[in-house]
Amino acid sequence: MPDPTTLTLEEKARLVFGADFWTTVGIADKGIPSAMLTDGPHGLRKQMAGSDHLGINASVPATAFPTAATTGSSWNPALLERMGAALAAECRVQQVDVLLGPGINMKRSPLGGRNFEYFSEDPLLAGELGAAWINGLQALGVGASVKHFAANSQETDRMRISAEVDERTLREIYLPAFERVVKKSQPATVMCSYNRINGVRASENHWLLTEVLRDEWGFEGYVVSDWGATWDPVEALKAGLDLTMPSTGEAGPATLVAAVKDGSLDEAILDRAVRRILDVHARLRATRTEVTFAASAHHEIAREIAADSAVLLKNDGGLLPLAQDGGTIAVLGPFATAPRYQGAGSSHVNPTRLDEPLAAIAEATGRDVVHAPAYRFDGGKDDALLGVAVDAAAQADVVVLMLGLPDAVESEGWDREHMDLPQVQLDTLSAVAAANPRVVVVLSHGAVVSLEHVVGKAPAILDMWLAGQAGGSALAQILFGLVEPGGRLAETVPWRLEHTPAYVNWPGGDKVVRHGERVYIGYRWYDTTDRDVAFPFGHGLSYTTFAHELLGVDVPDPTIAAATVRVRVTNTGERAGSDVVQVYVGDPVAGVDRPVRELRAFQKVALAPGEATVVELALDDRAFAYWGTQGWTVEPGEYVVEVGRSSRDIVATQSIVLDVPPVVVPLDVDSNFGDWLAHPIGARVLEEFGKAAAAGDSAGMLADEEMAGMMLQMPMVKVADFVAPGRGEQTVRGMLEALERLA
Amino acid sequence: MPDPTTLTLEEKARLVFGADFWTTVGIADKGIPSAMLTDGPHGLRKQMAGSDHLGINASVPATAFPTAATTGSSWNPALLERMGAALAAECRVQQVDVLLGPGINMKRSPLGGRNFEYFSEDPLLAGELGAAWINGLQALGVGASVKHFAANSQETDRMRISAEVDERTLREIYLPAFERVVKKSQPATVMCSYNRINGVRASENHWLLTEVLRDEWGFEGYVVSDWGATWDPVEALKAGLDLTMPSTGEAGPATLVAAVKDGSLDEAILDRAVRRILDVHARLRATRTEVTFAASAHHEIAREIAADSAVLLKNDGGLLPLAQDGGTIAVLGPFATAPRYQGAGSSHVNPTRLDEPLAAIAEATGRDVVHAPAYRFDGGKDDALLGVAVDAAAQADVVVLMLGLPDAVESEGWDREHMDLPQVQLDTLSAVAAANPRVVVVLSHGAVVSLEHVVGKAPAILDMWLAGQAGGSALAQILFGLVEPGGRLAETVPWRLEHTPAYVNWPGGDKVVRHGERVYIGYRWYDTTDRDVAFPFGHGLSYTTFAHELLGVDVPDPTIAAATVRVRVTNTGERAGSDVVQVYVGDPVAGVDRPVRELRAFQKVALAPGEATVVELALDDRAFAYWGTQGWTVEPGEYVVEVGRSSRDIVATQSIVLDVPPVVVPLDVDSNFGDWLAHPIGARVLEEFGKAAAAGDSAGMLADEEMAGMMLQMPMVKVADFVAPGRGEQTVRGMLEALERLA
Repeated sequence: MPDPTTLTLEEKARLVFGADFWTTVGIADKGIPSAMLTDGPHGLRKQMAGSDHLGINASVPATAFPTAATTGSSWNPALLERMGAALAAECRVQQVDVLLGPGINMKRSPLGGRNFEYFSEDPLLAGELGAAWINGLQALGVGASVKHFAANSQETDRMRISAEVDERTLREIYLPAFERVVKKSQPATVMCSYNRINGVRASENHWLLTEVLRDEWGFEGYVVSDWGATWDPVEALKAGLDLTMPSTGEAGPATLVAAVKDGSLDEAILDRAVRRILDVHARLRATRTEVTFAASAHHEIAREIAADSAVLLKNDGGLLPLAQDGGTIAVLGPFATAPRYQGAGSSHVNPTRLDEPLAAIAEATGRDVVHAPAYRFDGGKDDALLGVAVDAAAQADVVVLMLGLPDAVESEGWDREHMDLPQVQLDTLSAVAAANPRVVVVLSHGAVVSLEHVVGKAPAILDMWLAGQAGGSALAQILFGLVEPGGRLAETVPWRLEHTPAYVNWPGGDKVVRHGERVYIGYRWYDTTDRDVAFPFGHGLSYTTFAHELLGVDVPDPTIAAATVRVRVTNTGERAGSDVVQVYVGDPVAGVDRPVRELRAFQKVALAPGEATVVELALDDRAFAYWGTQGWTVEPGEYVVEVGRSSRDIVATQSIVLDVPPVVVPLDVDSNFGDWLAHPIGARVLEEFGKAAAAGDSAGMLADEEMAGMMLQMPMVKVADFVAPGRGEQTVRGMLEALERLA
Repeated sequence: MPDPTTLTLEEKARLVFGADFWTTVGIADKGIPSAMLTDGPHGLRKQMAGSDHLGINASVPATAFPTAATTGSSWNPALLERMGAALAAECRVQQVDVLLGPGINMKRSPLGGRNFEYFSEDPLLAGELGAAWINGLQALGVGASVKHFAANSQETDRMRISAEVDERTLREIYLPAFERVVKKSQPATVMCSYNRINGVRASENHWLLTEVLRDEWGFEGYVVSDWGATWDPVEALKAGLDLTMPSTGEAGPATLVAAVKDGSLDEAILDRAVRRILDVHARLRATRTEVTFAASAHHEIAREIAADSAVLLKNDGGLLPLAQDGGTIAVLGPFATAPRYQGAGSSHVNPTRLDEPLAAIAEATGRDVVHAPAYRFDGGKDDALLGVAVDAAAQADVVVLMLGLPDAVESEGWDREHMDLPQVQLDTLSAVAAANPRVVVVLSHGAVVSLEHVVGKAPAILDMWLAGQAGGSALAQILFGLVEPGGRLAETVPWRLEHTPAYVNWPGGDKVVRHGERVYIGYRWYDTTDRDVAFPFGHGLSYTTFAHELLGVDVPDPTIAAATVRVRVTNTGERAGSDVVQVYVGDPVAGVDRPVRELRAFQKVALAPGEATVVELALDDRAFAYWGTQGWTVEPGEYVVEVGRSSRDIVATQSIVLDVPPVVVPLDVDSNFGDWLAHPIGARVLEEFGKAAAAGDSAGMLADEEMAGMMLQMPMVKVADFVAPGRGEQTVRGMLEALERLA
């Protein structure tokens, strides 16, 4: 790597901006090659040669893997690591240095336009899956760019909106997936988001990009702007942004050169950014060995992931799997021949191959398969289309009705305004189910949809999300039981939009969106506010059955916040299958409000019929902690450890007691009477003060029960003022001095 | 009134602080009498002579009227005006100049320790009742002190907590009751609250105390601190606080004198405060004529209010009213002989007389009445007590079981931690109802309690709230149908605490409480978020029945936001009774999120059997407005006017269309592409810009549907930057110049 001191100021200023839409600046005579950054956590999206500079034209063919909304449901980090490795191979062959992903933001509302690019509403799950994906990718010398950092939960006004969110909520919900990824897989780059956070743009947020990301978490890569997220390149550089993308022409570099020359930017800050960028690219190149791949093998991986991520929401009477022989199957809906398998926007991939659901179903079975489109994607009413479908349903043994969100309904760049399936699809379901109640509904969509008008009409519901280019064949295999549906919901399916956590705060206005629900997103909201849901977080049925036995929660040393949960899982059914052991922790009595339960560990296990295994899951201090005024805080006392099949289906519970040191709130001149009483030394000082004051008439006040209750919430200064008008502050300062003497 | 210029600086500094706990400073030789301020919106609480300076000792006997939680349910401003007049008479006899009330804060959570002192969760209802009370009081020359201004919704950390609340929420929810009271009844004083609002103490909040209260609303009285709410007397004076209570000894005046002398306080600001205080007291004295009253007459008023505020929540099978003769009545529960009839804290009144429910019931009927205490107030289990009560219930024809919150469970000074009735009371209900299902539950409490475990077990529930000293006889009269229960809920009764709007934000921590639910408190929350409730806002049964016919919603001029709603109400039953016509307005398509409905007018009518009347209710512009970036905003378009018996029992609906001018959002350098498109002139400028840019390759971008969707949410600067890198701001500044030329 060239020493920045050998570069001119002008060269360095150019190096921290894109050369064009997708590449960094190379300076051949200084030995600095250009690097290519390319869109697409679910597949490579490298622009065709001769593409426009705006980046909206066709891209070279690449494997379209399932989107993150799908893979989030896999709960399978090992599989995500394989996906990362496969993507890396494709990147290497296309000379791509950095792949822009994974997206690990939290899903705050079902309406978020980029939800399909994100894993979950839970930071542990998103962080574990993201870290595995990155490890797979980076092992082959391709850099990840974990995005969008941070609190980028909506598309509405995304370039101006300020997410007003308290630090506890950031620390417990919106940052931990990034923290986990940085600590477990050290991504080559972090992409800062478009939005502002508490008024400060992510691209100019020193606290976020430097204090938290580097100083606290130890990030060693470079920070790249989301495309167009830089406004003031000088402030951005100072805050810790390194690379601005895309090119800003001559404007950006010129601004930096001028700023260094007029002294408003320390050249060392520019050097630092240059060094980070060149260092990351050099390190990536240094780790590379020869890579080749077969598109067909990647297609198989895509299929495996699709199946392992498919969530069997409902299966009344064991309608699924279907027998491979028997009567006619009616496969209805236009998705059967025109599948929706990926999201729209910057992550759109040109697939190497595309498995059509209808053809795959026909191929997988000896049964007669008939198809009718049934309804139009554009939502228009078409009675003729529907009539044919209803007739087909009436004459079939079983119906596979494919419903979902057409491309036009969800995309990066804008948020949905409701979470309903198109009315024409619901009408089709009603008509079809009336003709033949043996309906398997198959869903294709990137973000959660309301199933209020689906659940009661279909005995079986299989959620494929956006299943990638092999989703059609994965579906066929699941329908006939050739593979198991391995998914568990990575996000809650609420009954209605009105029930969702951000409903009364979404999407904000006047450039501000308030996180009024605080840490309570996803199941944390539904479970804590006692709200009925259609399908809870973690839910997913299997073709086989499992039994869980909590063998114990082991706390080796109660003065240290750490425990091991041992669970025996037994496949009690007749088929092989996989299950996810989910461990939640709750803190029933806490100094702050807390969600009733939070996912703190999970593990997926695959078991043959009758097979059993013991899973050990580790809980570290963060599994018990909240972010308090003193930072991460674990209080002494009781915690409830739960093993669940979902956040609403807790199968075993055990209480443990931690004997860690109590939290002491430091006293100051503002402290309440109650704070003084609760403080180990403060209480002694207070007693002395009380004796002195008892000479006056304050004793009566303290003896009065009603008055005493009121006083706990009063600043000591005011209590002292009531006793001796005008002398409160003086008294409390004296008490604080006494406190210091005794400490 | 003496001219402040005749007073010395030291005298003026003394005049803006209390002389002691309850009186202002008098300066006899300057002709300035001391004034007495006294606690108690529900009754006079004047300290006995020789009382302690802390104000916690016994007070002179006074009529204990029902508390505001009770009178809120009356929906009867005329009755509140009579109550105000009665209170004024008692004040006059006791030489009280200012009565500290009414409390018109919004009930944000059922847990609020002072909820019993407040009317409602709705600002229109609270404002109308508060204004009527003040008009009644002030007509006799006694000043009101409307409190607690503002956003003082909790007791937890009440002297330090900052209510973090956006301006729209303040303007639409927490301020309008104060605004209404100021505009309709010009209270002598406004009491500022203890808390901070968005970081600034109410006592030092210039925006609140001067810009909003005086400059916008036209307040002409003086602002007094809540007792101890002043921290920095100089800053407070500058912000618009006039009188600090109670006395701060020599400290406060000395601080002001020093500040004037060292130039940090303009003496004119001190003069202004002195003038306001003296002026108000002088005006009050000037309006006084001789007043006398009979305690018995006031007792009758208290009884009338109690009955008119009692809410019959449930009355299956017409169990109420009870026949005056027949079998035995078992009156169970210790409240029967030790009624809970007022709240605890600063408003505690020493009643002139106290009607015991048991004695009143016995007196009102010829039936045999037996009594058993049934359970203990302290919550302790007592099987013997319960056994006697169950035996009494089993042998009785009907049971009147009195349940509620004992004094120790709710008070000023601290908030409740749950909203349950004591478990011992619920157990008693279960046992009693098993012995005799003919149970009338009578409730006594200041804040909402969960009825989850009550509703299913009692065919009749009568909610008396805290019914004042005549509550016992009012209860007896209602039970036997001698008077009608006239109340309608002024606040929603939710099923569970977890369902309440502030649940995940209450009571905050680290000196901050976030109003995450924004404008959605009370029924605005439950109705908008589709949450089932036990009893909705506005609910209350009658002994008779009413029919409502919406005759029409008249909009004289659609270009002006004003309408008249005409409703015919008919008493279709066999008994006289009163009903409340409730008019709600909704704005189904709006530029901002809005509650599904908001109470915008109401009127109580009393009708004889078979009698009908037509009620006309006026809706002004505020009935349609929200607080937007441009202030109060009425958008053109459709509004839904609803007539309801409660917020959940809408009996008639009519849509109207307003043709007011549309809201134009001004464009600036930050405006989004979509803002430009929506702006009448901006769209023309944009077209010119587009033609110029089409020479480049931006045309393709605009033609691409997906891209166009994304662009709407992009700042114009960024769009222009993508087209011509680095020249975005320059382009947009040019467009803004063009805009100005065309405007």
